[in-house]
Amino acid sequence: MKEISGGVCAPKGFLAGGIRCGIKPTSQKKDLALVYSNNFCSAAAMFTANKVKAASVQVSMANIADGNLQAVIVNSGNANACTGEEGLKAAKQMAKYAADALLIDPELVAVASTGVIGVPLPIDIIGKNINALKANLRNDGNADALEAIMTTDTRKKEIAVEIEIDGKIVHIGAMTKGSGMIHPDMAAAKHATMLAFITTDAAVIPSVLNECLQKAVKKSFNRLTVDGDTSTNDMVLLMANGQAGNKPLVKESDVFYKALEFVCVSLTKMMARDGEGATKLVTVTVNGALDEEAAEKLSKSVASSSLVKAACFGADANWGRVLCAMGYSGADFNPEKTNVSFKSSAGEVQVCRDGMTVPFSEDQAKRVLSQEEIEIFISLKEGNGCASVWGCDLTYDYVKINGDYRS
Amino acid sequence: MKEISGGVCAPKGFLAGGIRCGIKPTSQKKDLALVYSNNFCSAAAMFTANKVKAASVQVSMANIADGNLQAVIVNSGNANACTGEEGLKAAKQMAKYAADALLIDPELVAVASTGVIGVPLPIDIIGKNINALKANLRNDGNADALEAIMTTDTRKKEIAVEIEIDGKIVHIGAMTKGSGMIHPDMAAAKHATMLAFITTDAAVIPSVLNECLQKAVKKSFNRLTVDGDTSTNDMVLLMANGQAGNKPLVKESDVFYKALEFVCVSLTKMMARDGEGATKLVTVTVNGALDEEAAEKLSKSVASSSLVKAACFGADANWGRVLCAMGYSGADFNPEKTNVSFKSSAGEVQVCRDGMTVPFSEDQAKRVLSQEEIEIFISLKEGNGCASVWGCDLTYDYVKINGDYRS
Repeated sequence: MKEISGGVCAPKGFLAGGIRCGIKPTSQKKDLALVYSNNFCSAAAMFTANKVKAASVQVSMANIADGNLQAVIVNSGNANACTGEEGLKAAKQMAKYAADALLIDPELVAVASTGVIGVPLPIDIIGKNINALKANLRNDGNADALEAIMTTDTRKKEIAVEIEIDGKIVHIGAMTKGSGMIHPDMAAAKHATMLAFITTDAAVIPSVLNECLQKAVKKSFNRLTVDGDTSTNDMVLLMANGQAGNKPLVKESDVFYKALEFVCVSLTKMMARDGEGATKLVTVTVNGALDEEAAEKLSKSVASSSLVKAACFGADANWGRVLCAMGYSGADFNPEKTNVSFKSSAGEVQVCRDGMTVPFSEDQAKRVLSQEEIEIFISLKEGNGCASVWGCDLTYDYVKINGDYRS
Repeated sequence: MKEISGGVCAPKGFLAGGIRCGIKPTSQKKDLALVYSNNFCSAAAMFTANKVKAASVQVSMANIADGNLQAVIVNSGNANACTGEEGLKAAKQMAKYAADALLIDPELVAVASTGVIGVPLPIDIIGKNINALKANLRNDGNADALEAIMTTDTRKKEIAVEIEIDGKIVHIGAMTKGSGMIHPDMAAAKHATMLAFITTDAAVIPSVLNECLQKAVKKSFNRLTVDGDTSTNDMVLLMANGQAGNKPLVKESDVFYKALEFVCVSLTKMMARDGEGATKLVTVTVNGALDEEAAEKLSKSVASSSLVKAACFGADANWGRVLCAMGYSGADFNPEKTNVSFKSSAGEVQVCRDGMTVPFSEDQAKRVLSQEEIEIFISLKEGNGCASVWGCDLTYDYVKINGDYRS
């Protein structure tokens, strides 16, 4: 497997584009994106488990039910959530605009939205600009599309890889947006306002695609937290158009799955690093838990703790907060068998052994925790369960960004 | 029922004191408190449900098992949590120092600690100062004791009320500390580093005292959130010495329970208002939910949301975040039957009807949300479940306070 450039356009047959149509009224930024395969695709998706589901989520859930898609249209600047019947009509109309322009069936179009909740979507603007959007489609349009899906994101988050299946070169490409309201919880074929769009030219039947996506999301996006808020609009979409010419995968391929997991984990880490206001990527790893579920619960509780996140911001080796967050996670573990270390490119410092303090250099701990990527490494000696969860620090800028998001 | 002064010393026979003994090495603040009844008390308590329990919690759980206490000794500046066998020995020794000075059995002494986790408690300092602490006991020592239990608290939180039972005047007094690491979760006879100490001269048998306390905590401290972090040291303690001379309560008295609930809710609101960095008390009320449990889950999810809390700080009427937080609460409700209003002394503004936006004045909403006490009022039209949860806004100062707590 090797990393390549091109994002969602890296796989053969995928075109992408992005334009500004004015959904973000006070901004000159792009706000409407389209990703399109020039042939029919197998598709799989997961959507937010939030009971309040955006209109785009409802429409996309229906359109992907048969396992096929050919395009996805995405707007930023408006979540089209809590907008009632009108919102649902608008989301359906958005699919229809794209379908009509692309000369395909509206049921082959997924719809995604991100932005403010509760404001009616100006669907007419999208209608007026759909042909311009179509005209913008290019086989190197990944950068335009990526720009158009961003909200409070400060970094571009895309990746692509190349693998070999059956002697055929296969590509997987992907882009994502997501910075705040990030604590994805995507259930069996549902859940994330993170949006992630993954394309591949592999030939894979829908059921296998779905199986691979669910497994990969469980180990990636569902182990991401910025602020504990699970959005109404989260969506991960995977489209496979088969143009690589491999023998269609009718059961899970290890090579394909591993590449997909790598892509999902890479995007997850990019999102954590770009969490609203974040200065640091914080990885929390638990090893030796009773089982994987316990490891995930423990690491997610630590990564979600406001106190731990604030301590990471301050580069303060306040490990008691780590044990405290483990203690209220709901997972079973023995505090008296808990070891905690802080790691980064500046080295490693153990701060807790068997649930108690060990002498350590505060200066060294400060150095370790002052890096841009830090890891809280917990080992438990109770079983084989291990998991990593990705988050970020809690900073003044998170408060600033969210104290007045709408203006 | 009327409010009176005196805090924990308002009920007859209770003495309190507080001194500085040097547990907070770099501070001149008081750090050691004692509350004592000059006779034997019925007692009830609830402790943190965190799996990591401070040594003080373990010792107090054991000492209260028989339903009787006569004193509680409290230190601030050190949580004595994650300190192993030595920590447990220190907590037992702390009870013994107090017991020896007061000439009572160590098992009649509860122990509470609050402060940094993972640092050995300097128990010798407490031994050297125990006689000074005893000498400081007075029947108006509530203010000294209260000062000595504070950590990041900026406001003194105490209350007392007078009621009549059987024609006898009965008093309930209380003090609390708690500002950060506040998301109490106290289970049947367990849970909260909030500390709350309640005294009464009512005569109540231990089982009834316990029943009343559990019921009151469920509707007060367990509906409080500052930052979602459930501490290792939380404790609510209630001691009843019977000196009011009422006929001992052998079943729940409505008058007594109502007064106790009032005291607990009052302390809860004081803690929310004094949450770390808070500029506002935020009450989230849900009415018309399927049942009380659903109402509590929904309101707690909204009050805990970092995005809602940041919007409260910015006085931004971003009601979409309210619906979003309800949606991931895990409680059942119909988003399309949800109404949301913001209320304060500056008036009321409805922002959402039947799950959708309603036209409202942004200026008026800003005025309403700019007050020091605001309410997010949600009504659901689904049943009779209602609950209020108390929290605060998320501010720059929360990040500042917790970015480097230990120094």
